[in-house]
Amino acid sequence: MTTENTPQVRFGVTKETSEHEARVALTPEIVTRLAKKSVNCLIESGAGLSAGFADDQYAAAGAKIATRDEVLTGSDALGFIERPEGETLDRIPRGTWIIGMLSSFSDKDYVSSLENHGLVGVAMEQLPRQLSSAQSMDAMTSQNSVMGYKAAVKAADEYGAFFPMMTTAAGTIRPAKVLILGAGIAGLQAIGTARRLGAVVTAYDVRPASKGEVESLGASFLDLGLDFSQGQGEGGYARELSAEERAAQQAAVDSKAAGFDVIITTAKVPGRKPPVLLTAAGIDGLHTGAVVLDCAASDLGGNVEGSKPNETVVTEHGVRILGMPSLASEVPTTASNLFARNVADILVHFISDSGLTVTPGEELDDSLIVSGAPAAPAADAERTDQQ
Amino acid sequence: MTTENTPQVRFGVTKETSEHEARVALTPEIVTRLAKKSVNCLIESGAGLSAGFADDQYAAAGAKIATRDEVLTGSDALGFIERPEGETLDRIPRGTWIIGMLSSFSDKDYVSSLENHGLVGVAMEQLPRQLSSAQSMDAMTSQNSVMGYKAAVKAADEYGAFFPMMTTAAGTIRPAKVLILGAGIAGLQAIGTARRLGAVVTAYDVRPASKGEVESLGASFLDLGLDFSQGQGEGGYARELSAEERAAQQAAVDSKAAGFDVIITTAKVPGRKPPVLLTAAGIDGLHTGAVVLDCAASDLGGNVEGSKPNETVVTEHGVRILGMPSLASEVPTTASNLFARNVADILVHFISDSGLTVTPGEELDDSLIVSGAPAAPAADAERTDQQ
Repeated sequence: MTTENTPQVRFGVTKETSEHEARVALTPEIVTRLAKKSVNCLIESGAGLSAGFADDQYAAAGAKIATRDEVLTGSDALGFIERPEGETLDRIPRGTWIIGMLSSFSDKDYVSSLENHGLVGVAMEQLPRQLSSAQSMDAMTSQNSVMGYKAAVKAADEYGAFFPMMTTAAGTIRPAKVLILGAGIAGLQAIGTARRLGAVVTAYDVRPASKGEVESLGASFLDLGLDFSQGQGEGGYARELSAEERAAQQAAVDSKAAGFDVIITTAKVPGRKPPVLLTAAGIDGLHTGAVVLDCAASDLGGNVEGSKPNETVVTEHGVRILGMPSLASEVPTTASNLFARNVADILVHFISDSGLTVTPGEELDDSLIVSGAPAAPAADAERTDQQ
Repeated sequence: MTTENTPQVRFGVTKETSEHEARVALTPEIVTRLAKKSVNCLIESGAGLSAGFADDQYAAAGAKIATRDEVLTGSDALGFIERPEGETLDRIPRGTWIIGMLSSFSDKDYVSSLENHGLVGVAMEQLPRQLSSAQSMDAMTSQNSVMGYKAAVKAADEYGAFFPMMTTAAGTIRPAKVLILGAGIAGLQAIGTARRLGAVVTAYDVRPASKGEVESLGASFLDLGLDFSQGQGEGGYARELSAEERAAQQAAVDSKAAGFDVIITTAKVPGRKPPVLLTAAGIDGLHTGAVVLDCAASDLGGNVEGSKPNETVVTEHGVRILGMPSLASEVPTTASNLFARNVADILVHFISDSGLTVTPGEELDDSLIVSGAPAAPAADAERTDQQ
């Protein structure tokens, strides 16, 4: 059987366990897609329910419904939305591939732990996003895009007035003035969605290049009267500003914020404390009924001073600050389909005639594999044989 | 002072007291508007807070901030979102005008009660909506319009996938298929809002005339293969269907519903039990993750079998049925501005050189006044004198 050209790879996904997580790393659509690449899928019973996918849909697509333990111990590769920890890691057999966001930039101990468990760590956050062959594997982009859409929809739902302008017999309703702080993938998607709903949208980002992107979507770029040139950082993320620049930026944003009805902040920086984009002084200037939605809210703080993750803080003046760090998870069907596609395309990238293999020197491989790189293809072929 | 051309009329509004009501019948913008018509406004302290209007905004516009009792006893006319009942009625002096939705079509006892209290009942639901001079007084239209907007925004927020189609590196996301049942003011606004968000929208109404309206908004009209011609009822509302027609309609809608991701029902009939538009059989055909939003949910039942007011019912198959009877109140700023304008324009209609007066034989007056019509203008002039 080692002579077979397309060895069967077993790909398993379990139900996510953290409280605010409704997504799942495999969807029925992707089961079908993977089957064409000779990948057999295992999924924990009920894993897709919170994302709108029932066991029978997975089964109909060709997946095997299994217990959590069967998935963890019977897969060549496992996909995760949130990286496996502690006891889960202990149960996974040595040699298994772990594909997910592993926080490998900021958490070297975790990578060591994978190494100690003999697991092959495939860290999606290490993806060289600029490579065109990596586009369909880019979970940061896919999930931030969902986050931006949801941020605008949530804000529209929370705001006490219309987003669109409307001329009625009982008077003209003026459109909502929406400010988007942070014009990366999430910010651009929030701009597009708020504009679809008819709001008048302004946006700001420290990267000068973002001005053109913002304006191409029909939004205005907020003019702070400040120059942060060379703001573009590595890997497509905003660089961190100097303390002086940040103070100037904050003061300017805070004073400009007063004219807006809705403010959405999207400046998440992976693995680090998010930058403050709106301080208490800025919040104080907002009118009663204004809504501030902080996508970067976390226990370490967020983009908005005073925001709390998964809570709504109401100020003395009746401004509501929504801390919403899990927005992608709140559109679980779409977010799961995209994430599952990202994981699946990474998995397929590593499938060769000998099973799952790493090609040293290949840019994707060198970037993604953070632990336990298999020594030689032969070892994998042997493992595949046991099926 | 009786010779003065424009007598001062005192218009008062109190804080609404029912649990799901965030609107207020007077806004700062309308205080300014009424001042130009020599109307002095009184507002209960805090009455506008839940709609995003602080006392100081009312005061800045020229309103007097007062206690509830001062408003109830010191006004020539009072405006209400929900009609005053019991003890509140007892505290209002005889001769005061009560402007609001009074349910006078279905609740004759209430009208008698107003008569017994010596109150002038101005029933907004009696408005002859076809009159062009009545358009800006039409609270049914303004509030249903807000309801329709909010229904689409809520549904987008509740649905686990995107409304718009999107082409991404990780695959194409298909647009949500949305069905709107009931294409009156609310339904048309829901169509427009769901389409703004990028959904593919289909709608249905028993009035044949609605087909053109639906299609003019870019939505498809649901073809049930049934003929309910002459469905247009009096006053612009749908007529009630015969039992046979209703059964045929239900079966057809139920079977067509299965193809949709989101269903919004908007067929509220003022003062009556709403018609069932989607039965349990229809719900059973929906896929896991489908969202049904019933704007007509009430304790008497709604448009959707199994809906409960202010609750989300989740079926065995993972379909969520949202009973949302108070959606206009959930966009309280916009809804209040429009309602306040409606009330104010009605008030102004009745202001003459002699204060608040009724002109028998005038179509608006004959329709709107349901109790306590003042016998002669002189009586009002005298009352105005006391200011």
